[in-house]
Amino acid sequence: MSPINRQVRLAARPSGLPKPDDWEFTSETVPEPGPGQFVVEVSHLSIDPAMRGWMNAGPSYIPPVEVGAVMRAGAVGLVTASEHPGFAVGDYVYGAFGVQEYARSDGRGVIKIDVSLAEPATYLGALGMTGLTAYFGLLDVGRIKAGETVVISGAGGAVGSVAGQIAKIKGCRVIGIAGGPDKCRAVTGEFGFDAAIDYRTEDVRKALREHAPGGVDVYFDNVGGQILDAVLTRLARGARIIICGAVSQYNETHVQGPANYLMLLVARASMAGMVVFDYEDRYPEAMAELAGWFQAGQLVSREHLVRGTVGDFHDVLLMLFDGANTGKLVLALEKS
Amino acid sequence: MSPINRQVRLAARPSGLPKPDDWEFTSETVPEPGPGQFVVEVSHLSIDPAMRGWMNAGPSYIPPVEVGAVMRAGAVGLVTASEHPGFAVGDYVYGAFGVQEYARSDGRGVIKIDVSLAEPATYLGALGMTGLTAYFGLLDVGRIKAGETVVISGAGGAVGSVAGQIAKIKGCRVIGIAGGPDKCRAVTGEFGFDAAIDYRTEDVRKALREHAPGGVDVYFDNVGGQILDAVLTRLARGARIIICGAVSQYNETHVQGPANYLMLLVARASMAGMVVFDYEDRYPEAMAELAGWFQAGQLVSREHLVRGTVGDFHDVLLMLFDGANTGKLVLALEKS
Repeated sequence: MSPINRQVRLAARPSGLPKPDDWEFTSETVPEPGPGQFVVEVSHLSIDPAMRGWMNAGPSYIPPVEVGAVMRAGAVGLVTASEHPGFAVGDYVYGAFGVQEYARSDGRGVIKIDVSLAEPATYLGALGMTGLTAYFGLLDVGRIKAGETVVISGAGGAVGSVAGQIAKIKGCRVIGIAGGPDKCRAVTGEFGFDAAIDYRTEDVRKALREHAPGGVDVYFDNVGGQILDAVLTRLARGARIIICGAVSQYNETHVQGPANYLMLLVARASMAGMVVFDYEDRYPEAMAELAGWFQAGQLVSREHLVRGTVGDFHDVLLMLFDGANTGKLVLALEKS
Repeated sequence: MSPINRQVRLAARPSGLPKPDDWEFTSETVPEPGPGQFVVEVSHLSIDPAMRGWMNAGPSYIPPVEVGAVMRAGAVGLVTASEHPGFAVGDYVYGAFGVQEYARSDGRGVIKIDVSLAEPATYLGALGMTGLTAYFGLLDVGRIKAGETVVISGAGGAVGSVAGQIAKIKGCRVIGIAGGPDKCRAVTGEFGFDAAIDYRTEDVRKALREHAPGGVDVYFDNVGGQILDAVLTRLARGARIIICGAVSQYNETHVQGPANYLMLLVARASMAGMVVFDYEDRYPEAMAELAGWFQAGQLVSREHLVRGTVGDFHDVLLMLFDGANTGKLVLALEKS
């Protein structure tokens, strides 16, 4: 009997928070590679806030996932069959393999990963798109300089926890905003930020006055909403805001725009959106630098691994919007 | 008997639209210049949306007008007495003389104007702070390039009408957004924009799809609110938004933040605030270029002159928030 490939497909476009009914579970025979192709057995799925956006219709920075299609997901896995000259059975690879147990690929957008340097899941975290997003956001869009005060929201999350560490490596003073005492402890402990603000119990604006008395030079925003509005009131002259995401808003039917955006004028500040895919040409240099910091022990990659099957995808996705994860949320696949 | 200097002072900080009671009228003897000082008889007052912001307490890009102080205003006038070596009786000058008939000055921030080149009021318009705001906003913050599509809100107003003309001079395709058929006619006629959108009768988003099918490269925003949100949905990749003002929001007790700000991410766009005062070092070069365009007939300065006394200031200020002016609103003082 051929092995089975279990898949999660988008069944309906959700309004607000995704519901179990928005997914359809399908099974197919595991595909065979054609000429120039290979097959990957997926071991770890990257669970990202951006997935919520991919479920919506309409133009965005990448096309939406079509209803009926396998849900898009970054993933790592092992090549189990290959008719591609560049990929051999036994290679570990990263790619947009989707929420399924096996994927067939022609190698476009697929990167080989070195599992002797780090665990496969780390290539979904600090050594993967997560790390690259933090890297280019801070260095290219944020143009951080040593001595500057950098504030990062979602500081206990995947991108935020790496961003703060990069800002520290670059000599900045770094303040993280996160939800709950455990995350805040990780932010100042494991991730080495200078200070953490718990937005669930603290007045963010007041706490920023205390921790960033000279104002915020760079704000790396992963959350949007009220936290973005609070930081806008504390900008230093010439501040840069990096809009990386807005996890607080992805499930809202009416997005809350930043009511304090005129502080951009007061502070002569700028707010710019960034999408990591634009930096593909520069992935190798960035990955080399991230790997160097990782090997030197300057950069911690924290993955929040949940073991389960593709059938658990929905529940794991919702953890993101509860703020239940610290570090990179990963679904480590067990075969059902 | 000594001549009298009639003045308008801030009596109370308004909530929402200013009321007549927010002003106090005072009279003083016209001041005499001390050593290093001169006295100006004010002929024309610049009436600006920014005035509304100066009436609010709290930090902004310049200190608020204190309750009891003469209301801040840019103005032009004639030097009538001088003990300052740099300014002689008969000189025409621009300065922040305030809403009053006479002002005493030590010359700081005062510029001599050439009334043989243009009418005094023009130095409040295209050849003054208005023109400089448009100039640095578009060229320095917006970094417009020939062939780009530039959208300007408040296109029939003081800064907008000059901004559009500068963008045309620089080889851009220029679309103005304005309120009402008269203003729209001025935008495409007198000011030479390629197209005008009447936000009172047209669906701005739809009209932008028609007039800017390739998207908006640069948006010069004077109004905020729903128009900003509409333009955000039509940004070209790498677009730049210049936040110059938000006249639709100045009298609102709750500012409407741009709900579509995540389009900055989709378009990899940026939104930056600008304040003309930051460019003081470069005023001379910019004024020379503006004057050159004006003399060559490439740049039209339209002033909307209202003749009256300082007692009419309140009514003239409210014209701005009604959108009653086309071009630069100026109160031309007659002595009461």
